[in-house]
Amino acid sequence: MKQSKQILKNTNAEILDEFNASIMFDKELYRQDIKGSIAHSKMLALQNIISNDEQLEIEKGLLQVLEEIEKGEFKFSLEFEDIHMAVESRLIEIIGDAGKRVHTARSRNDQVCTDFTLYVQEKSVSIKKQIKTLIETFVELANKHTDTLMPGMTHLQHAQPINFGFHMMAYANMFKRDFERFESSYERNNYSPLGSAALAGTPHNIDRFKTAELLGFSAPTQNAMDSVSNRDFALEILFNISTCMMHISRISEELILWSSYEFGFVKMSDMYATTSSIMPQKKNPDVPELLRGKTGRVYGNLISLLTVMKSLPLAYNKDTQEDKEGVFDSVSTIEISLSILNEVIKTMIINKERMFEACKIGHLTATDLADYLVLKQNIPFRTAYYITKEVVAFANSINKDISELNIDEIRKSSKDLENVNEDIVSYLNLENSMNSRNSFGGTSTKQTKLAIETFQNWLKNS
Amino acid sequence: MKQSKQILKNTNAEILDEFNASIMFDKELYRQDIKGSIAHSKMLALQNIISNDEQLEIEKGLLQVLEEIEKGEFKFSLEFEDIHMAVESRLIEIIGDAGKRVHTARSRNDQVCTDFTLYVQEKSVSIKKQIKTLIETFVELANKHTDTLMPGMTHLQHAQPINFGFHMMAYANMFKRDFERFESSYERNNYSPLGSAALAGTPHNIDRFKTAELLGFSAPTQNAMDSVSNRDFALEILFNISTCMMHISRISEELILWSSYEFGFVKMSDMYATTSSIMPQKKNPDVPELLRGKTGRVYGNLISLLTVMKSLPLAYNKDTQEDKEGVFDSVSTIEISLSILNEVIKTMIINKERMFEACKIGHLTATDLADYLVLKQNIPFRTAYYITKEVVAFANSINKDISELNIDEIRKSSKDLENVNEDIVSYLNLENSMNSRNSFGGTSTKQTKLAIETFQNWLKNS
Amino acid sequence: MKQSKQILKNTNAEILDEFNASIMFDKELYRQDIKGSIAHSKMLALQNIISNDEQLEIEKGLLQVLEEIEKGEFKFSLEFEDIHMAVESRLIEIIGDAGKRVHTARSRNDQVCTDFTLYVQEKSVSIKKQIKTLIETFVELANKHTDTLMPGMTHLQHAQPINFGFHMMAYANMFKRDFERFESSYERNNYSPLGSAALAGTPHNIDRFKTAELLGFSAPTQNAMDSVSNRDFALEILFNISTCMMHISRISEELILWSSYEFGFVKMSDMYATTSSIMPQKKNPDVPELLRGKTGRVYGNLISLLTVMKSLPLAYNKDTQEDKEGVFDSVSTIEISLSILNEVIKTMIINKERMFEACKIGHLTATDLADYLVLKQNIPFRTAYYITKEVVAFANSINKDISELNIDEIRKSSKDLENVNEDIVSYLNLENSMNSRNSFGGTSTKQTKLAIETFQNWLKNS
Amino acid sequence: MKQSKQILKNTNAEILDEFNASIMFDKELYRQDIKGSIAHSKMLALQNIISNDEQLEIEKGLLQVLEEIEKGEFKFSLEFEDIHMAVESRLIEIIGDAGKRVHTARSRNDQVCTDFTLYVQEKSVSIKKQIKTLIETFVELANKHTDTLMPGMTHLQHAQPINFGFHMMAYANMFKRDFERFESSYERNNYSPLGSAALAGTPHNIDRFKTAELLGFSAPTQNAMDSVSNRDFALEILFNISTCMMHISRISEELILWSSYEFGFVKMSDMYATTSSIMPQKKNPDVPELLRGKTGRVYGNLISLLTVMKSLPLAYNKDTQEDKEGVFDSVSTIEISLSILNEVIKTMIINKERMFEACKIGHLTATDLADYLVLKQNIPFRTAYYITKEVVAFANSINKDISELNIDEIRKSSKDLENVNEDIVSYLNLENSMNSRNSFGGTSTKQTKLAIETFQNWLKNS
Repeated sequence: MKQSKQILKNTNAEILDEFNASIMFDKELYRQDIKGSIAHSKMLALQNIISNDEQLEIEKGLLQVLEEIEKGEFKFSLEFEDIHMAVESRLIEIIGDAGKRVHTARSRNDQVCTDFTLYVQEKSVSIKKQIKTLIETFVELANKHTDTLMPGMTHLQHAQPINFGFHMMAYANMFKRDFERFESSYERNNYSPLGSAALAGTPHNIDRFKTAELLGFSAPTQNAMDSVSNRDFALEILFNISTCMMHISRISEELILWSSYEFGFVKMSDMYATTSSIMPQKKNPDVPELLRGKTGRVYGNLISLLTVMKSLPLAYNKDTQEDKEGVFDSVSTIEISLSILNEVIKTMIINKERMFEACKIGHLTATDLADYLVLKQNIPFRTAYYITKEVVAFANSINKDISELNIDEIRKSSKDLENVNEDIVSYLNLENSMNSRNSFGGTSTKQTKLAIETFQNWLKNS
Repeated sequence: MKQSKQILKNTNAEILDEFNASIMFDKELYRQDIKGSIAHSKMLALQNIISNDEQLEIEKGLLQVLEEIEKGEFKFSLEFEDIHMAVESRLIEIIGDAGKRVHTARSRNDQVCTDFTLYVQEKSVSIKKQIKTLIETFVELANKHTDTLMPGMTHLQHAQPINFGFHMMAYANMFKRDFERFESSYERNNYSPLGSAALAGTPHNIDRFKTAELLGFSAPTQNAMDSVSNRDFALEILFNISTCMMHISRISEELILWSSYEFGFVKMSDMYATTSSIMPQKKNPDVPELLRGKTGRVYGNLISLLTVMKSLPLAYNKDTQEDKEGVFDSVSTIEISLSILNEVIKTMIINKERMFEACKIGHLTATDLADYLVLKQNIPFRTAYYITKEVVAFANSINKDISELNIDEIRKSSKDLENVNEDIVSYLNLENSMNSRNSFGGTSTKQTKLAIETFQNWLKNS
Repeated sequence: MKQSKQILKNTNAEILDEFNASIMFDKELYRQDIKGSIAHSKMLALQNIISNDEQLEIEKGLLQVLEEIEKGEFKFSLEFEDIHMAVESRLIEIIGDAGKRVHTARSRNDQVCTDFTLYVQEKSVSIKKQIKTLIETFVELANKHTDTLMPGMTHLQHAQPINFGFHMMAYANMFKRDFERFESSYERNNYSPLGSAALAGTPHNIDRFKTAELLGFSAPTQNAMDSVSNRDFALEILFNISTCMMHISRISEELILWSSYEFGFVKMSDMYATTSSIMPQKKNPDVPELLRGKTGRVYGNLISLLTVMKSLPLAYNKDTQEDKEGVFDSVSTIEISLSILNEVIKTMIINKERMFEACKIGHLTATDLADYLVLKQNIPFRTAYYITKEVVAFANSINKDISELNIDEIRKSSKDLENVNEDIVSYLNLENSMNSRNSFGGTSTKQTKLAIETFQNWLKNS
Repeated sequence: MKQSKQILKNTNAEILDEFNASIMFDKELYRQDIKGSIAHSKMLALQNIISNDEQLEIEKGLLQVLEEIEKGEFKFSLEFEDIHMAVESRLIEIIGDAGKRVHTARSRNDQVCTDFTLYVQEKSVSIKKQIKTLIETFVELANKHTDTLMPGMTHLQHAQPINFGFHMMAYANMFKRDFERFESSYERNNYSPLGSAALAGTPHNIDRFKTAELLGFSAPTQNAMDSVSNRDFALEILFNISTCMMHISRISEELILWSSYEFGFVKMSDMYATTSSIMPQKKNPDVPELLRGKTGRVYGNLISLLTVMKSLPLAYNKDTQEDKEGVFDSVSTIEISLSILNEVIKTMIINKERMFEACKIGHLTATDLADYLVLKQNIPFRTAYYITKEVVAFANSINKDISELNIDEIRKSSKDLENVNEDIVSYLNLENSMNSRNSFGGTSTKQTKLAIETFQNWLKNS
C-alpha cells in the first residue's frame, strides 16, 4: 500500500518534470547555446575573469558537446530541464570544475534570451534567402509570359484582359514586402541581451560590447530588466511569417481555382498533385491546399505568444517558457512552405489556350469600346455606355464576345455605329486592350517588362 | 397586399443597403479622400487630361465639401454607400459636370487604397509622437528615481535590489522599440497606389510619380494588381498597435499590483482612480485595469484582418471592405491609451518608503553575501552557499533581513564567519548591492543615469 | 496661462470620461436594465424591504424612462458613465428619493451581469429563430432539386455525381448544429446573478429565486463571487456565432465560385449582386463576398474576450467592461448575415443545364465502371482499375465523357470489354450513378428525400 | 553532375513527403483507427459484403497490429503518409488480400472523420473526469475553510470580508460549467460519419446504424457531404479547452499573487515551486506561471482551426489535414494542466493568519457601519456615509482598522456616535460582517456550507 503511494508520488514527479521541462523542444537551440557560451567565455578571459587556459578548455569542451549532439550521441534527458543545463552538465562532465565557470556573470534569464534571439536572427536571414529565391521564380515565370493573355478578375469575375506575367509580378511585389519585413526586424532586434544576468546586470567587470561583437550583434541591449522580459523579436518573426503565409494562401487559392476543370488555366506537375487510387482521371491539388491550410497554424502561433505576453509583470516569469514552440513551428512551416511553393510554381504547366479562351467570355473590352466612343467620337459617356450595352447585346445574340466582332458586325450592332470608323475593331482587340493600360505599374507588356527589369536589378543587388 | 410586399421589399433593400454600405465608418477617411482627389486633379491638369479651369473648379468644390463636413453640415447618407461616392456626388452637385471628370483614370479600387494608406501613414506619424511623449515621461520619472531602492522581481518574488528609475527605463526601452516599428512600417509602406485603377492600370497618360509626390509618398507602387489587393500596411499597423498595447498591459498590470494594499508602492492620482460610492476608503485603479483590458480588442482586430485576407484570390474582392473598422478602432484605442497612460505615469505618487521597506523582505543581498565569500574570502561557491543559508537562518531567527545585520550579528551567525572582515557589512547593504550591478545596462545608479542620458539625446534628435 | 492649464485639465478630464465611460455602447442594454430593475423592485416589495407603494412608483418611473428611450427623447450623456446610472439618475429625477431605493441589496457588479446575461439569452433565442428560417430555406430549395445533377467535388475537383438538393442539405445539417449550440448554451447559462451584490452577497433578506423567476431564468446562480466574475456565457455566444459564421463563409465561398463565368452554376438575384458602372455585362457577388469577409470580425471578437479574461484575479475587475462591444458587434453581424443569406439563397437562380454539363467533365462515373467490373464481371480490382484507365483514354480520344459512351464505343475501348454486357451502359449513366449511392445519408434522390422529410418534421416540432 | 540533380530531386521528394504526410502526428489515432476498422468489418460481415471468415481474419490481424504498436514494435514510416494507410498496409502484410476488403464501402474521408470523432469523444469523457476530480479538491478545501476569513477583492483592492471556502467555491462553479460544456459537446457530436464514403455515400448495402452502435455513437450522421466536411466537433473541444484553461489561468494568477511576499496568503508545496540555485530563500511559483502561460497555446489552437475552416468549399479539402495537431496539443495541455493544478491545490499551505491580518487593512466593514446607521439608527444614507468617513479617519489616526475599534473609541470618533448603542461593535466585527452576507450564494459560512453540500451531492450523482 505504501509502495503504491510511492509510485503515485513518482508518477506525479514525472508528470511535473515533463510539465516544467523545456528540453524536449528547446534542444533546437543547441548550436546557439554553445555559440553563446564560447563567446561569453572568450570575453571572460579577455576581462581576466577566467584564465586563458580555462577558456581554451571550455571552448574545446563545448565543441565536443556540439559534435556529440550533431552526431546524435547526446542524450537529451528530462532531468536537465532545459538545453542550457543539459549542455553545461555535459561540459562539466568532460572538463570538470572549469566548466562551472562559464556561467560566471550571466544567468539563465539572459542566456535563454541570447540563444533565442540568435535563433530568430539566423532564421530571419535564411527565410529572406528563401523568399528571394521564390521572387526569382516568379520573375522568371513572368518574363516568359509578358504577352500571355488572361482575364484579370475582380470579385472572381472577368474584368479586364491582363497578361499572366503581370499577374505573377503582383506576387513578386507581395513577397518583396515580406523580404523587407524580415530585413527590418533583423536590424531592429540585432542587440545582445548577454550579460543582463538575472534582471539587473552583474557586479563582474564584463564587456558586453565584446560578446555582442563576437556573436554578430550590433551592440548590447540597453536595459537588463527589459532584456530578460522582452519577446518583441519573437512576436515580430511570428507576424512576419503570418503575413508571408497569408500571401502564400492567396497564390495557393488561385492555384486551386486555376487547376479546377472549370478554370483549367494551369496544371500542377504530377509531383505536386496527387492522383486518386480509384479515379485515374482525378488530380488533386493537395499541395496548394495544404499550403493554404497551414496559414491557420502560423496565425495561431502569433496569437498564442501575444496572449502569453499580455499583462506579464517584469521581469522574468516562467510563462515566457511558452515562447519557443510556436516560433519553431512557424519557422519550420514557412521554410517548408516557401521551398515547396517555389517548386510548385517552377514546375506547373501554363495553359495559354484556356487562358486566352477565357478572355473571350465576359466582353472584357467593353470599357475600351466606351472609352473609344468618348475619346475618338466625342460622345458623352452616358450615351457611350448605352451604345456599349447595345453592342454587348448584339454580340450575345450571335454568340460572340465583343472582342471577336468584325467591323460589319459592329456597324450592324447599333444605329449610332452605322458609320463608325474601322479602327474601332482594333480597340476591341484583347491584346490591344491589355497593352493600352500602359501607365506606370499597369499591365501592358511594356510596363510588365519594365517591372521585371527593376526586379532583376534588385535581385542582383540585394 | 401589394403594398405590404412593397414594404417588405423596401425593408430588405434597406437591410441590404446597411449591409453593403461602408459610409457609416469610412467617412472617417473624408480628409484623405479629398486630399487624394485634389492631388489627382492637379496631375490630370498637368497631363492635359483635364483643363486648368476644370482643375480649379474641382479643387474649390472639394474644399467646400471639406468645409461642410468639418462644420458638421454634411449629410452622410446610406444611399451613397461609401465616402468616395458621397464626396463625389456632393462635388457634382456643387460644380456640375466638371465634377465627374475627377474620377478619370482612376477607379474606386485604387482610390480606397490611397485614402486608407494615407490614413495609416498619418496615424503612424501621430502615434509615434505620442509614444515619444510617453518615453519622455518615463525618462523624466526615471531621472528622479535613480537611487530610489525597490525590490527587483522575477516570478513576482523579490530577487535583487534595483532602483525605480532603472525599472522605468525598462519601459522606455520597450516603447522605443514600438516607436521604431511604426517608423519602419511608415517607410516600407510609403508608396502611392493611386493610378492603379481597377486592377491593371489605365490607358490615360497619367503621371503617378506626380500624385505620389503631391501626397507625400516616396514613389508610386510597382504593380497595379498588387496595389488594389494589398492590405499589408493595415496589418502592420494592427500588429504594431498590438505590440504597443501589450507593453501597456504590462505596465498596467504593475500599476494595479503596486497600488494594492499589499504592495503599496504607488498611488494613482485621484483623477485616475475611482472611489467607491459606499466605501470612502477604497480607491480602484480603474484606468490601468481598462488599459489592460483594451489589449483584447486590438489583438482581436489583428486576427480579424488576418482572417479576412486569408486565401483571397486577386485582385479586388468586396471582403476587403472589412479592413477599416478594426484599424480605426485599434488606432483610436492606442491614441487614447497612450494619452491616458502618459497622464497616469506623470501624476502617480511614488511611495519610496514602502518600496524601501519591501527591499528588507526576502534577503535580497543573499547573492552578494555568497559573492563576497567567493571573491574576497576565496571560499568555494558550494561552501559559500551553505554559509549564506546559515546567515539567512540566523537573520530569520532574530526577525531581521540580512541587509540589516551588523558586524557582530554576522560574525555570530556562522562559525565560518567568526573572523570575517568588517567590510562584509557594506556588501550586504541594499544600496551598495544595487550599485554593484554596474555592467552596461545594469541597475546601478551610474548605469541608470547613463541610460537616461542616452535617451535624452535620442529624444532631442529624433 | 492659468486658464490654458485649466483647459488642459478639462481636456484631460473629458478624454478620461470618454475612456472610462461605457454608456456609448452599453445603452444597448436599456431594456434589460429596466426589466431587471422592475423585477428587483417587485422582489424587494414582496420581501418587505421596500413598500408596495414605493415599488409601484419605481415601476411606473422605469416604464416612463423606457418610453423616453424608445421615443428617442432620452439624452445619453457621458457624465452618467453607464446605462445603469443613466437610467437610475433619470428615475430619481422623475420619482424622487424612492428611486434611490431600487438599488438596495444589489450592486453595479451583479446588475451589469444580469443585464448582459439577459441580453445574451434573448439574442440566443432570436438567432435560433433566424437559423431555423435559414434551414427552412435550404430544405425547401433542396426539395426542388432532389434530382438536379451536379458534380460533387473534393479538392475542388469533380469527384462523383450528386444532386443539388443533397448539397443544400449538407448546409441544413451544419446550421442545425449551430441551432443546437445556441440552444444548449441558453440552457447552460440560464441562471440569474441578480442579488450577488458586489461580490459576496448581501445582508438584506432578499429572494433570489423570485427575481430569477420574474426574469425567466431557471434559478439563481450558486456563488456570488463567481457570478460577478463570470463571462462564460458571453464567450459561448461569441464562439457559437463564430462557428455559424464559418459555415456562412463556406456557402458564401461556394456561391462566389458558382457565380463565376467558369462555373456558372447559379446567378445571384440582381438585388444581391452589384453591377459595374462601366461594364454593363459584369455582375459582382458583393453580398457573398462581404458575408465571407465578416467572418474576420466575429473571430476577432472571440479572441478579444478570451484575451481580456485571461488571468484576471477574482472578483470584479474593470477589464471586463471590455466584454460588451464585441458581443454586440458579433450579434448584429450574425443577425444581418443570417437575414441576408436567407434572401440570397431564396432568390438565386439555379442553372441546372450548366450543372449537368459540368457532370460530363471528369469522367465522374469512372468509379462506377470499376465497381461494375468487380461486382458483375468478377474481375479483380487492380485489373478493373487498368481497364477503366483504357476506357477513359478512349473516351478522351473521341472527346466524350465516359458517361456519354454507347455500348459499341465501350466494347471498342478495351479488349477486355469486347463482349461486355449491354447493362454496363446504365452503370455509366450519371443519374444512375447518383442514385446508386443509396446508403443512409447518401446522395441518392431517395435518401435525399428521406433527409428532407426528417428535417421537415424537425422544423415542425422544434 | 547528373547524380547531384538526382539527389536534389530525391531531396525535393522527401521534403514533399514530409510536407504531405500526417503519419507523424495522426499515429496518435491508432487505437481509434483499429477500433473503427473492426466495427466496419463486423458490419460488412453482417451485411454479407464480406464473409465471416474474412471478418475474423481482419479482426485478428488488426488486433495484432494494435499489439505491435502498443509494444513499440511498429515502424511508422513517412511512406505510408497517414495512420490509416500504415495500419492497412501492415494488415495486408499479415493476412494477405483479405486485408484489402476492410476498405470496402468506405473512403479515407469518412475514415479519418470517424477516427477523429472517436478521439475527441473519448477525450471529452476523460477530461470531464479530471475536471470532476479538480472540483472535488476545491470542494474539500472549501469545506475546511468555511470560516477562514480573507479580504474579498474587487479591482485587486480589499472590498469585503469573505471566507476562503467561499472563494474556492467560486472556482468549483467555474469548473462545473466547463464540465457541462464537455458533456453537452459530447452529446451533440456523438454521431458516426462512418459509411459516408468519399462524399456521397456508397452503392454497397451497408448498415450505418450498426457501425454507429458498435462504436458507441448515438446514430449515424445525416448527410454524407456534411459528414466529411464537418469539423465542428473539433472546434468545440478546442473552445471548451480554451475556456477551461482561461479559468485555470485565473486561479493561477491568484496563486502567484497569493504566494508573493506581499500577499503571503498561501505557500506552494515545495514540489510545485522551484528554489533558486543561488538564492536559498527564494521560492518561485513556476508551476502556476507555466499554467497561466499555457493559455496562449490553447487559444492559438482554437484560432488556427477557425482559420483553416474559413471559406472552405465542400466537400473534403486537404486543408483539413491541419485539424489534428492543434487538438492533440490542446488535449494534452489540458490533461497535464488539470492533473497538476489538482495537486497544487491539494498540497498548498494556507496561511490563515496572513489572510486574517489582511482583513484588518482597508476598513472592510465600512459598509456594515453605514448599513448599521441606516437600518438601526434610521439615519439617512448620505449622513451615514459622512459619519463613516469620520470613523475611518479616526481609526486611521490611531493606526487601527475600524473592525478593531472598541465601543469607547467608536463613541469618540464622531459626535453623532457619542451615544451609540454598544451593539455597533459587533457590526464592525469581521466575522460578523462576513456572516451577515447570508443571501443565497452569499459568503456567510452558512451559505458556503450549503453550497458545498449541493456540490457534494452533485459529485456523488454525476
